[in-house]
Amino acid sequence: MRVLGIDPGLRNMGWGVIDTAPGRISHVANGVCHSSGEDLAERLLSLHVQLVEVIGIWTPDVAAIEQTFVNKDAVGTLKLGQARGVALMTLAQAGLRVGEYAPNAVKKTVVGVGHAAKDQVDYMVRLQLPGVKLNGPDATDALAIAMCHAHQSRGGRGLEMALAKAKT
Amino acid sequence: MRVLGIDPGLRNMGWGVIDTAPGRISHVANGVCHSSGEDLAERLLSLHVQLVEVIGIWTPDVAAIEQTFVNKDAVGTLKLGQARGVALMTLAQAGLRVGEYAPNAVKKTVVGVGHAAKDQVDYMVRLQLPGVKLNGPDATDALAIAMCHAHQSRGGRGLEMALAKAKT
Repeated sequence: MRVLGIDPGLRNMGWGVIDTAPGRISHVANGVCHSSGEDLAERLLSLHVQLVEVIGIWTPDVAAIEQTFVNKDAVGTLKLGQARGVALMTLAQAGLRVGEYAPNAVKKTVVGVGHAAKDQVDYMVRLQLPGVKLNGPDATDALAIAMCHAHQSRGGRGLEMALAKAKT
Repeated sequence: MRVLGIDPGLRNMGWGVIDTAPGRISHVANGVCHSSGEDLAERLLSLHVQLVEVIGIWTPDVAAIEQTFVNKDAVGTLKLGQARGVALMTLAQAGLRVGEYAPNAVKKTVVGVGHAAKDQVDYMVRLQLPGVKLNGPDATDALAIAMCHAHQSRGGRGLEMALAKAKT
C-alpha cells in the first residue's frame, strides 16, 4: 500500500510518500509545495496544481493529513484552514480516502510520546526510513503523518514490527 | 460585466450572479451549494463540483467573496476557512479575479450602514433587484457581495446611480 502524507500550510505544504508491506515500510519520495501567486486565490490554486502533480507522479493508494491545531491565533488558523481545505478537496478529487490525525497522535506513533520535539521526529523518521533525504521539516512531518496512517490502518501491528526492525 | 458573489460556508455556500452596466444592475441567478459526502474531504469536493457547475452555467467575468470574520469560535473559523479555501481556489482555477470584502463593507454598500440587520440586507437586495426570487439568506448575502463588488470596481458611482434609481 502506498501512503501519501500531507502537512498542510499556506506558505509551505509538506508531502511524503511511503510504501508499506507486512512488517516493512520504505521511503518513496518527499517534498514541499510552495504557494505562489499575487493573491490568496492564486496561491491556493498553485498549491492545488502542485498537489495534483505529486499525486500523478507518485500514485498513492490512500492519503493522510494532519488535523489542524486550533489555537488562539485565529488569523493563522484561518490561513491554515484555507490551505487544508484545498488539500482535502484535491485528495478527494483524486479518489483517495483521507485519514486525519492529531499532531500528538502522529508523534506518539512515530516517536512513542505525544509531546516529542521536532528533532526527535526528525531522528525517528530517518531511523525508520534508512537513507532518506528529507526536504525540510514540513516534508519530514508529512512522512511522519504517512507512517502514522500506515500504523493505524493495520491496527498498529505492521509499523510496530517495522519500528522494532529499525531499532535493532 | 457579470459578477459572481460568494458567501462561503461548509454546510451552505451561497452564490449570486448580477449583471452591471453604467447606472444599472440586474439579477441573473442565485442559489446555494449544499455540501454532501461521508467525510470532510468529500464534502469540500462536492462544494467544488457544484461551484464549477455554477461558473460553467452563468459564465461570470469577475468574482467577489466575503472576508471571513475571525471570532472566538476557532472550530467554526477553521470549518469556514476550509470551505472558503476551496471556493477561492475554484474561482482562480476558472480564471476569475476575486475581490474580497469585509461583511461590514458589504452592508455599508448595500444598506448604507455597516451594522445592518439581516432583514435590512434582504429588503435592499429585493429593492435593487426588482422581481428577484431569493433562494435563502446565504444566496441573498452572495448577491449583496456581488453588488458590493460592482460598486467598488466602479469607484462607487455606478451602483450609487442604480441605488438612487431603485429608491425613486
